[in-house]
Amino acid sequence: MPSYNAPTKDLHFVLHDVLQVSASDVPGYSDLEPDFTSAVIEEAAKLAQDVLAPLNTVGDQQGCRLENGVVYTPEGFKAAFEQIKEGGWNGLDIPEEFGGQNLPYLMGSAVGEIFVSANMALNMYQGLTHGAISAILAHGSDAQKATYLPKMVALDWTGTMNLTEPHCGTDLGMMRTKAEPSGDGSYKITGQKIFISAGDHDMAENVIHLVLAKAPGGGEGTKGISLFIVPKFMVNDDGSLGARNAVSVGKIEEKMGIHGNSTCVMNYDGATGYLIGDLHKGMRAMFTMMNEARIGVGLQGYAQAAVAYENALAYAVDRLQGRDVTGVKNPDGPADPLIVHPDVRRMLMDQKSFVEGARAFTMWGASLIDRAHRLDDKDADGLISLMTPVIKGFLTDKGFEMCVQAQQVYGGHGYIEEWGMSQFARDARIAMIYEGANGVQALDLVGRKLAQDGGKHVMAFFAMVKDFVKENEGDARLEGFLAPLKAASKDLQAAGMYFMEHGMKSPNDALSGSSDFMHLFGHVCLGLMWARMAKAAYAALDEGASDRDFYEAKIATGRYYMARQLPATAMHLSRIQSGADTVMALGAEQF
Amino acid sequence: MPSYNAPTKDLHFVLHDVLQVSASDVPGYSDLEPDFTSAVIEEAAKLAQDVLAPLNTVGDQQGCRLENGVVYTPEGFKAAFEQIKEGGWNGLDIPEEFGGQNLPYLMGSAVGEIFVSANMALNMYQGLTHGAISAILAHGSDAQKATYLPKMVALDWTGTMNLTEPHCGTDLGMMRTKAEPSGDGSYKITGQKIFISAGDHDMAENVIHLVLAKAPGGGEGTKGISLFIVPKFMVNDDGSLGARNAVSVGKIEEKMGIHGNSTCVMNYDGATGYLIGDLHKGMRAMFTMMNEARIGVGLQGYAQAAVAYENALAYAVDRLQGRDVTGVKNPDGPADPLIVHPDVRRMLMDQKSFVEGARAFTMWGASLIDRAHRLDDKDADGLISLMTPVIKGFLTDKGFEMCVQAQQVYGGHGYIEEWGMSQFARDARIAMIYEGANGVQALDLVGRKLAQDGGKHVMAFFAMVKDFVKENEGDARLEGFLAPLKAASKDLQAAGMYFMEHGMKSPNDALSGSSDFMHLFGHVCLGLMWARMAKAAYAALDEGASDRDFYEAKIATGRYYMARQLPATAMHLSRIQSGADTVMALGAEQF
Repeated sequence: MPSYNAPTKDLHFVLHDVLQVSASDVPGYSDLEPDFTSAVIEEAAKLAQDVLAPLNTVGDQQGCRLENGVVYTPEGFKAAFEQIKEGGWNGLDIPEEFGGQNLPYLMGSAVGEIFVSANMALNMYQGLTHGAISAILAHGSDAQKATYLPKMVALDWTGTMNLTEPHCGTDLGMMRTKAEPSGDGSYKITGQKIFISAGDHDMAENVIHLVLAKAPGGGEGTKGISLFIVPKFMVNDDGSLGARNAVSVGKIEEKMGIHGNSTCVMNYDGATGYLIGDLHKGMRAMFTMMNEARIGVGLQGYAQAAVAYENALAYAVDRLQGRDVTGVKNPDGPADPLIVHPDVRRMLMDQKSFVEGARAFTMWGASLIDRAHRLDDKDADGLISLMTPVIKGFLTDKGFEMCVQAQQVYGGHGYIEEWGMSQFARDARIAMIYEGANGVQALDLVGRKLAQDGGKHVMAFFAMVKDFVKENEGDARLEGFLAPLKAASKDLQAAGMYFMEHGMKSPNDALSGSSDFMHLFGHVCLGLMWARMAKAAYAALDEGASDRDFYEAKIATGRYYMARQLPATAMHLSRIQSGADTVMALGAEQF
Repeated sequence: MPSYNAPTKDLHFVLHDVLQVSASDVPGYSDLEPDFTSAVIEEAAKLAQDVLAPLNTVGDQQGCRLENGVVYTPEGFKAAFEQIKEGGWNGLDIPEEFGGQNLPYLMGSAVGEIFVSANMALNMYQGLTHGAISAILAHGSDAQKATYLPKMVALDWTGTMNLTEPHCGTDLGMMRTKAEPSGDGSYKITGQKIFISAGDHDMAENVIHLVLAKAPGGGEGTKGISLFIVPKFMVNDDGSLGARNAVSVGKIEEKMGIHGNSTCVMNYDGATGYLIGDLHKGMRAMFTMMNEARIGVGLQGYAQAAVAYENALAYAVDRLQGRDVTGVKNPDGPADPLIVHPDVRRMLMDQKSFVEGARAFTMWGASLIDRAHRLDDKDADGLISLMTPVIKGFLTDKGFEMCVQAQQVYGGHGYIEEWGMSQFARDARIAMIYEGANGVQALDLVGRKLAQDGGKHVMAFFAMVKDFVKENEGDARLEGFLAPLKAASKDLQAAGMYFMEHGMKSPNDALSGSSDFMHLFGHVCLGLMWARMAKAAYAALDEGASDRDFYEAKIATGRYYMARQLPATAMHLSRIQSGADTVMALGAEQF
């Protein structure tokens, strides 16, 4: 069975050495003293390591089952979920009035990584609930908040998001699910929704479905869509549960991975639903959930890579096979450990440099969300809005790739389910697809986010890179970081320029390069993170930090990323600049 | 359920337009007239489409089971295997004296692609047998050939390869399985072998295991290893089957994919074995099987991508979602088909240009094997020996990547097992691992093959590229092929030069770039194939070929590969030239 040890030290480094959170002007950040964040993270680590991680394989092997309309989760899930509830983990970053602890979103993300690495499928029951809470917080009436939030924060009730239907996923304008006014202010919801994560289960008293449906009078396409609260059990005025609502599980899907999460077909047969937010403005309300969910999915991508890497490293240190070509390293053993071999090192360094870079990137993104929300900072809001598709798309594409590579370190054993490496790859695979397939993220980035507010936010990003380079140009130790970062950023700007010049008159030229642009952007972001981390590590060393090994390894890992990963930006630029000609050359019938 | 339609037309193009097989001087090639090859391929296609492909999902879902020491294959496998037997497919390229048809290896490869695309797990029972036949043909005594080959060619008996043990895979020198002389010329084999594909099953009367084991007196490491024939049932002098040998199945492994193939732990408890080839020269004999097997595994990589692509394309044409940004394409429908979207096109073109390039590359490689064997051409032998790790490593890495991308075209449906796209990815994943993990292929390429015969073969490859470019430089229509091919080949030469300059004094500098070199090499090979295919397609168009769409699509697909894939070579070169510094910087304890 795979092991899991939470990266408490590395999270500490990101929060305090890099982001310097407790010195931030964001309200609430001054509480984030090292002792406090460590206590929270250590506590989460304990639960993750002792309770959640050991159930990960169990969840994969047993999956969920539907019996007589009731969904049963794998053995042990319910007891573990109880511990998540008791720890109050779901309310970490929720206002106190609804039972939360009002900590920054950043702390929720740090804990989130740990829970996701330990058991992604189990964590999703909580994750979806958190997203639903955010939507109700942002769009619900006071009465709705009072009715649903305390129970959902406490995880007595969990939440879901219902968007997809059999014939429409990305293209929600084709939605068929209907909402008919009942006359008493509520609606009757009728239709079928598919791919509903955590759609039903046996771990909570009630499930609160947030459902997109078309109410009369809204017009064609997405304009007619509204968002509804549809509880599994009706909620009485005193908060107690009433009759079963007309919503049921059609089936549980057989999937490639995340077997421990119940992915349901949900049937709504005139189920009672309550409008949330404005009528016919459901897409806007749903996007509140989706944006948070997208960052959460990006986090899943690198969190799976993190645990896969931990195990690949352990295997590479433990497994004896072959001899170091430069000289025997383990003369008393029958062979040297795998880690002596350069190509195994390459794989481990790919994983390590990605995971640590992605961790910093995600936590920085989370701190932007706090800045946007807690300071009402429009610039931070614009920047994280720009970054969201990059976090989601790049970190899940690469996260999956790194899980596959971690599996490769195991050789044949990586293919055998018993070792658990296959599960990391299979589980991580979904993150490239759900919450908007990565192609849709790329489209969002190039088609919408790039030009948002007149391109202000991407300009701000470029300025940030430029300023960092300028500020540190005198530091010879950072030369190996600054030069590649500058070159990569130049590639990104050239790509942006190409889109500006071609996008308006020939949108296909821009869209043909959208996925490459997302990856190019991702590399520049991780390059920037690594330059920052290197700077922070040198500062710690200068200050006489005791754990020199940690900081020196950090710098060496960053150098690897700059030397081995950033050269990808030129390739992406070259593809982008080749435009749509070769991409769109064939008629559909010529394929 | 996924569909499968064999690429009969494209195979025809590769064999006749590109390789011009019937005009070749290789003995037996003059028989390969278009009518004849088409008849063979059409017949294989029929069996694959009607019988093998429909069982692919069944095999995945049911897997194999071990009951009271007997392995049962999935429902329908046995009947399908009977049809493969009856068709004489296993003997296609085996000498007539052993019941084969003595066709070129190339024809076996063309048929092989079709069978592997249709049902990889089922095909492996035949594929392993074919490999075992090759080893016995090359190293067996006349008596051994007479005893085993006719039965194995007919698939009455199947074969296996037994190398790996729990503690050693790549590093076979640590092998513990022992062979003790019995005194009657035979040996007693004792030990445990793992990951034995097609290790046991219910589709043949006997299983002939080829087993590596250490016989006394051979010395340490791989030097002491010999190869033995260990039949499941003893074979009497008259060819009839005798008592059960002391070999048994310990268990069937639970794997990520290829569930329809029984991957067994095999226990040898003093089983009777017969030396094949020279004592203590078992590694050499095993490599006969392995080299063929490696090309076969490269073929699996692209063959899985081929069928995955076929299905992704069908889905992209069928599924209506969103509108073409440049103008509605399907005004009568609720949305346009996925294929109008540039990022979906990008994915399809990635797959199509890889699959068709890989097909040409593999068939060219197969023709080199025929040239080497049938003309005893040492240059051809050296060249295919150089190419073998590229075919195995590059085509399986990319083949898996393309299966994952094909899955991505399906969005959420790609993650649901019912649609079959997950299986292609899960099945293809093993090809990166077995027959030498791809890192081992890269090591073989850089550490051994590159310098073989004084670097003669890689020089021959460079000359081939150069000659092609020179020959065609006047043809303006090929400009879009020649310039990128030249640039990519220059990158490959620069990488080779880097290894020559650094490899001797610092082997880690070379080995740190081995995997990148393998990919760089693969891209140049596919670039060369595309340039050749474009030339052949233009020639066909010039000659007034009726199916202009096919040839024009071929050229357009090639242009895509040159514009969108070849830019990867500069990235690989840049990584290679960064050497071992960042790869090997960390102490093992610093990770």
